[in-house]
Amino acid sequence: MTAETLVNSKLVCVALNDKEQLATLEATFNEAPYKKPPTQPVLYYKPRNTWNRNGAEIEWAKDFDGSDVPAMAVGTSLGVVIGKETCRVSAEEALDYVGGYTIVSDFSLPEQNYYRPDIKGKCLDTTAPVGPEIVTADKITNPETLSVSISVNGEQKSVVELANMERSVAELISIISRIMTLQAGEIIAVGFAGNRVPVAKGDKVESSIEGIGTLSNTLGGA
Amino acid sequence: MTAETLVNSKLVCVALNDKEQLATLEATFNEAPYKKPPTQPVLYYKPRNTWNRNGAEIEWAKDFDGSDVPAMAVGTSLGVVIGKETCRVSAEEALDYVGGYTIVSDFSLPEQNYYRPDIKGKCLDTTAPVGPEIVTADKITNPETLSVSISVNGEQKSVVELANMERSVAELISIISRIMTLQAGEIIAVGFAGNRVPVAKGDKVESSIEGIGTLSNTLGGA
Repeated sequence: MTAETLVNSKLVCVALNDKEQLATLEATFNEAPYKKPPTQPVLYYKPRNTWNRNGAEIEWAKDFDGSDVPAMAVGTSLGVVIGKETCRVSAEEALDYVGGYTIVSDFSLPEQNYYRPDIKGKCLDTTAPVGPEIVTADKITNPETLSVSISVNGEQKSVVELANMERSVAELISIISRIMTLQAGEIIAVGFAGNRVPVAKGDKVESSIEGIGTLSNTLGGA
Repeated sequence: MTAETLVNSKLVCVALNDKEQLATLEATFNEAPYKKPPTQPVLYYKPRNTWNRNGAEIEWAKDFDGSDVPAMAVGTSLGVVIGKETCRVSAEEALDYVGGYTIVSDFSLPEQNYYRPDIKGKCLDTTAPVGPEIVTADKITNPETLSVSISVNGEQKSVVELANMERSVAELISIISRIMTLQAGEIIAVGFAGNRVPVAKGDKVESSIEGIGTLSNTLGGA
């Protein structure tokens, strides 16, 4: 566990917020047991043992028997930092509760399916770096105009326009604040590209959002 | 959110650890998409906004539109308090990492199904009281000999023998410590009865474990 972190008490991630991914999964969602696409945002937590910072090493994950896992992948999201207690706010007023923005990467095991809560793949030690800093909210007038890019060893692997999110930052804050009260300093990772980027031991991963910065981390295990 | 809490940074709950419940669900598990019962413990978190203490009011939950939810239910578990950093320990040595024991109640919306991560029903503000205190580990020689009882308004509604857990406290600590590193003060709620106890506004709920104490809370909204 890394002591220095920009996270205060909670890091909530929104899964399945990529329009393209939802379109790809539509046939699967229409099968049993759901028989329809999710009607609410699908959330998961990155717990405290996952929190990490810019520049730090990401541990290569181990399997149950202590051997190295065969594969890991990374996704990156805009991180919305809550500025004050947020409970049951409307989408129209939601952005008033944002204190700032940052970058959240989520290193995980490749996803097996979309049914079971993927606790094992999502809560690996040191796999949620946040940073490099928090940019105050007044610097970003419309978060949906931003794009998130991921490079591995200097080669660009993924670019996602936040305009392609199924739900906007304001909508997500409104919905999540009706599920749980959010406190200042808590962070919502509002959405990742459906296609995670595969990474290998020793890879250098740089995730950038214009106006916010570049979050840079190296995979361990090499 | 209640400032006073016995929880330090993480409250992990184990779902589906009741042998009787697993037997009841066997037919369901054998259908699509799983086609077999869970092979690993199913975990969920109670995040910080849920943490509460003995004697405090549990807020009656509200729906998305702000109206009161029609029904809530409670389950109670032995709470295992981690005593020191715990990473990849064997079941044989796992109890050496326990600092103490307490009681964890989980007030939630009645469960709809076992497929989707039930974030909405599990992360309601103030719904995870912990207490009344932490009893040091040396006071409890074998946690599997304990039983957990729940009374509502003085009438006993549920008694569960911890001997009926699918996985023991030691097995759970061993498995979870291979998924994520646990820190001193973090709490694992090792298992709840499959049948949650329905509660109404204004109900007084008392959960007891012999040798640990009684955790007492009242539902709000009355």
